Amino acid sequence: MEPGDAVSPGPGQALRALLPRLLLLPLLPVLLGRGLRAGAAASSSGAAAEDSSAMEELATEKEAEESHRQDSVSLLTFILLLTLTILTIWLFKHRRVRFLHETGLAMIYGLIVGVILRYGTPATSGHDKSLSCTQEDRAFSTLLVNVSGKFFEYTLKGEISPGKINNVEQNDMLRKVTFDPEVFFNILLPPIIFHAGYSLKKRHFFRNLGSILAYAFLGTAVSCFIIGNLMYGVVKLMKIVGQLSDKFYYTDCLFFGAIISATDPVTVLAIFNELHADVDLYALLFGESVLNDAVAIVLSSSIVAYQPAGLNTHAFDAAAFFKSVGIFLGIFSGSFTMGAVTGVVTALVTKFTKLHCFPLLETALFFLMSWSTFLLAEACGFTGVVAVLFCGITQAHYTYNNLSVESRSRTKQLFEVLHFLAENFIFSYMGLALFTFQKHVFSPIFIIGAFVAIFLGRAAHIYPLSFFLNLGRRHKIGWNFQHMMMFSGLRGAMAFALAIRDTASYARQMMFTTTLLIVFFTVWIIGGGTTPMLSWLNIRVGVDPDQDPPPNNDSFQVLQGDGPDSVGGSRTKQESAWIFRLWYSFDHNYLKPILTHSGPPLTTTLPAWCGLLAQCLTSPQVYDNQEPLREDDSDFILTEGDLTLTYGDSTVTANGSSGSHTASTNLEGGRRTKSSSEEVLERDLETGDQKVSSRGTPLVFPLQENA
Amino acid sequence: MEPGDAVSPGPGQALRALLPRLLLLPLLPVLLGRGLRAGAAASSSGAAAEDSSAMEELATEKEAEESHRQDSVSLLTFILLLTLTILTIWLFKHRRVRFLHETGLAMIYGLIVGVILRYGTPATSGHDKSLSCTQEDRAFSTLLVNVSGKFFEYTLKGEISPGKINNVEQNDMLRKVTFDPEVFFNILLPPIIFHAGYSLKKRHFFRNLGSILAYAFLGTAVSCFIIGNLMYGVVKLMKIVGQLSDKFYYTDCLFFGAIISATDPVTVLAIFNELHADVDLYALLFGESVLNDAVAIVLSSSIVAYQPAGLNTHAFDAAAFFKSVGIFLGIFSGSFTMGAVTGVVTALVTKFTKLHCFPLLETALFFLMSWSTFLLAEACGFTGVVAVLFCGITQAHYTYNNLSVESRSRTKQLFEVLHFLAENFIFSYMGLALFTFQKHVFSPIFIIGAFVAIFLGRAAHIYPLSFFLNLGRRHKIGWNFQHMMMFSGLRGAMAFALAIRDTASYARQMMFTTTLLIVFFTVWIIGGGTTPMLSWLNIRVGVDPDQDPPPNNDSFQVLQGDGPDSVGGSRTKQESAWIFRLWYSFDHNYLKPILTHSGPPLTTTLPAWCGLLAQCLTSPQVYDNQEPLREDDSDFILTEGDLTLTYGDSTVTANGSSGSHTASTNLEGGRRTKSSSEEVLERDLETGDQKVSSRGTPLVFPLQENA
Repeated sequence: MEPGDAVSPGPGQALRALLPRLLLLPLLPVLLGRGLRAGAAASSSGAAAEDSSAMEELATEKEAEESHRQDSVSLLTFILLLTLTILTIWLFKHRRVRFLHETGLAMIYGLIVGVILRYGTPATSGHDKSLSCTQEDRAFSTLLVNVSGKFFEYTLKGEISPGKINNVEQNDMLRKVTFDPEVFFNILLPPIIFHAGYSLKKRHFFRNLGSILAYAFLGTAVSCFIIGNLMYGVVKLMKIVGQLSDKFYYTDCLFFGAIISATDPVTVLAIFNELHADVDLYALLFGESVLNDAVAIVLSSSIVAYQPAGLNTHAFDAAAFFKSVGIFLGIFSGSFTMGAVTGVVTALVTKFTKLHCFPLLETALFFLMSWSTFLLAEACGFTGVVAVLFCGITQAHYTYNNLSVESRSRTKQLFEVLHFLAENFIFSYMGLALFTFQKHVFSPIFIIGAFVAIFLGRAAHIYPLSFFLNLGRRHKIGWNFQHMMMFSGLRGAMAFALAIRDTASYARQMMFTTTLLIVFFTVWIIGGGTTPMLSWLNIRVGVDPDQDPPPNNDSFQVLQGDGPDSVGGSRTKQESAWIFRLWYSFDHNYLKPILTHSGPPLTTTLPAWCGLLAQCLTSPQVYDNQEPLREDDSDFILTEGDLTLTYGDSTVTANGSSGSHTASTNLEGGRRTKSSSEEVLERDLETGDQKVSSRGTPLVFPLQENA
Repeated sequence: MEPGDAVSPGPGQALRALLPRLLLLPLLPVLLGRGLRAGAAASSSGAAAEDSSAMEELATEKEAEESHRQDSVSLLTFILLLTLTILTIWLFKHRRVRFLHETGLAMIYGLIVGVILRYGTPATSGHDKSLSCTQEDRAFSTLLVNVSGKFFEYTLKGEISPGKINNVEQNDMLRKVTFDPEVFFNILLPPIIFHAGYSLKKRHFFRNLGSILAYAFLGTAVSCFIIGNLMYGVVKLMKIVGQLSDKFYYTDCLFFGAIISATDPVTVLAIFNELHADVDLYALLFGESVLNDAVAIVLSSSIVAYQPAGLNTHAFDAAAFFKSVGIFLGIFSGSFTMGAVTGVVTALVTKFTKLHCFPLLETALFFLMSWSTFLLAEACGFTGVVAVLFCGITQAHYTYNNLSVESRSRTKQLFEVLHFLAENFIFSYMGLALFTFQKHVFSPIFIIGAFVAIFLGRAAHIYPLSFFLNLGRRHKIGWNFQHMMMFSGLRGAMAFALAIRDTASYARQMMFTTTLLIVFFTVWIIGGGTTPMLSWLNIRVGVDPDQDPPPNNDSFQVLQGDGPDSVGGSRTKQESAWIFRLWYSFDHNYLKPILTHSGPPLTTTLPAWCGLLAQCLTSPQVYDNQEPLREDDSDFILTEGDLTLTYGDSTVTANGSSGSHTASTNLEGGRRTKSSSEEVLERDLETGDQKVSSRGTPLVFPLQENA
């Protein structure tokens, strides 16, 4: 492929095609009104020249009007699709149908509408006009064109390869329903990814953090490399057979490996959630698929960066390889930092203001700050989607604790709705794209090769890694879990978004078509097969995800000894690597007290020489302790104390401050009226806290020392 | 003005400028990576020609990258602005500052940032390039340009008047922060208007419906006509004085009258709400300002339609006038119908499915259906914003009753957040626009004239109309109310959005500048003066808006005799016009039973010959009555019965079905745990129902007859 095709030519201009479709103009009545009066005007007196120019304008306006009607209709099509999907989802949930998940359903409806649009609408010729005026040096972003005395402003949309000039969008309706690929990256993915981070079940996630990171980073890299190499073999084979009509480089294969390695957290996990399947398996799969989306994005852009520019070779080059590894690490850590930083800033703002009295303001601020992560990362040259993921995790870990009860449910619900709409939109668009996308390249060998490659890639990723992880893990990852993880390697929204992002070259078009088919297959077959597979693999279902498993394992091999760790916490402590323990204690002693209203006051945890700083950072808490508003504060103390007292941990009550617990219980009582869904998350967060806090650090505020 | 300038030239293309600013591309890392490898690539071997083309592309990409950084930064500026506004709003609310409302605050921050951007950033020359190739006949929407062998696609952005070619956006940063006007109409106004409709306090609104309609329709028309004529005088004066440098027609003056007649429901009403000022005054002002936004939109487009095309005269023309009145009525009733229809469809869907078991699905459906109103209206050539208003009212009246408790709060909160963000964005943008908008035309005479005209227009609208309304009203609108309404004629978001929509001609630019100043002045001065004005005019504050006023009027002239009407309902009945009574009974007997789970079953209210249809439509209710799920249903019965029993209305308990009331009380008890804000709305809705139902129609389900 040509180096210039790696990204859509003019990214700025590439996006402009979408807005008219998303936003429909209320100018129509005006135009309509004009149409009516045009007849009257023509009959009255007036200069002939002005009249003809008015008629000309009228023609342009009519065209614009027609275009907007079509825009409205195409968007209405999508809304109709989503509405239908919602109603059918309801019907399925109502009748407890599980063989097809909602995302699969959305795709089917998309397919049907795609077929109708493709074969049911007449093919109209585009209104495009080729201007042969040759510019001297390069394309400008804005163009002024003189049309018989009038100047029109044009903006650059993108480059078109010479072969495609004649078949640029032959069907108006198909063109209308084809969104700009960047929309997926900039509008639809961020809420999905943020929601994934924000709704992460922290306790189980952090308990399996090491394994999750290994699967996400090493696993994705291994999978990408294996798939890439296998596909290179397939491409070679295709060349020999004579099935390949254009260039297909090694880097293209690696790129395909990267985009297809992004597993989808949606379908399988929705079923897991519904069936209350094993929490640790859930955490492993969820954590892996969320993080590997981030890894896949950065990986694919590093591979693009790796391609030697202006060269034909596209062969392996050690220097370029290390450079792209460096780029990978740079972008990833940069995006991570951005996300974490805005999360921390939001936590600080919500902590040090009493914004929680005004849930609307708080929710709006939360939304804006989370959005600014995306922009900030983009402005700094990092990956917004990745930053948004870590922002979500940070927000859930710190900011969430500072929010008012109403804002907690508001923010959760807001992002839940955005996530739901975006996800179903992507999946129904996928269905639509199979028929409305006009540059499909179906290559049976490549497709079959890809299916084999992702199977092998997944196997080479799960089994060896699990083996090595089991060497270090106290709770082994059982064979049934490994098989389930192997089976659950669905491809979904992220693979699609990465594939559709650039479909300029022949290789990329073939990749896109193949990705689409892989997504269809995995979502329908694997998504539908999850329930039978779970029972076939003897994986426990019906577990309350917020409850720990019972002390004795009832099914064979299920994370032996994992059960009782929430009671004592000592076992978890033993098995965690020292780096995580270090992080936990740092988080509990310093970060939580600085960023939230919980944890021990900094005056006790920080060394004496930073007493002033510590007092400054803990001051609102101290103020709160003297004001009647201090429930917010004592909420956390009490929660910890409460849980600790329930579990009867002796390290806590040894502090002698049990008097303050009972004193604040009454304050607490009034704040405990939450809706059930939110209570679940909160319980989770609190329990997570409790677990963290039971790791040997002082658990109860020594309030007496402060006073 | 030229007829072609009435709307932005190419509406479809006009929007494309925004998206790159709203959505920031995550392509930067890719581009960044390429920048890094470019050096390495240049030193390696390769065809010289390919190398140079790669370098060329690199230059274009660098430019695109730079443009995206700027996009990110400009959007970050707005987010920063909004964040600052939110924090300051909190501070103001915290300290109970009332002399400046949040919208005024947002404008001030916008102003400050505008000054910084204007005078603090270096003016860079644009990268625009004028292509002198003359096209034969007209401008096409898409252009293919051949640049040294490569084809680039350009899209039409709009026409530029010849005089402005040399100063097309001289400053990149200023250009970046200037949004496309249609964004206001298509993204920002719909949530604001929908929220206004959805959060309408129905009881007080419907009680004053006649007056509200009179103020909104007649009042706006009168105000528009008076302001238009006064401004025409001002324009004539300017011509004589020699202050007018370009054309300014009579229709332009009328158009100005229309856009400036849209009063803003935000600022004053926020203060009213906070102070719990008199509910009827609140209803009058809110209803008027919400509806007159819709009237002003349609009025302004009718005036544009009225302009005789291609003629220079722009004089009064009776035929065209009646045509534009016809257009006004057509567009208004069409938009109204669209809104009502989608609201009714949503109500039916939520009634006949058990979607309320899944609040997320329900909320998503509600959101999609409400949005589809906008699209549908646009697709049919009506005004989306107006349709959205009536959709909101219908949704609140019918659909809201069918929603689950969680969805009620979810939908309310979702639209509340959207409304809040959109509104504050508009107001801070207004502040920004005063300095960053590059085509201001400050004309002191016009501005002073406009201030006088809106004062006179408001006076000519409020006082005579109130006089005529008082002839028919039993509860007179007192002088203090009239003065307050006169005073509260703020101009806000809608006037701004209408003014910025088209700033192509000299006249429109002058209008825009004047509108901006009027908005500033009224929001700051009048918004800040509301509290003193209320006390000066002796208007009651501290009234619970959901409670009726006490039976005896405590301040002079306050809607005499308005107090006790909720007790008996007979007085209200007497004073309502027969058309409204007819509507009320129709709504209660037929629409509510068809669209919601409340009201008497259709089998009793419909004539016997449509028994089958009635049974079909009431069937879910009947099923509910036999299933344990029937609380939904009895909720309504009970609520009515409950309130009635409280008020001791004899017409209700005369039905002899008091046994069913007590029977369903237990079912009711469990569902009454709602958050306070929502309970308020619900209480309002329920009370509204109670009032409606006490208008002489059978109030209690004759359940015995059904069984």
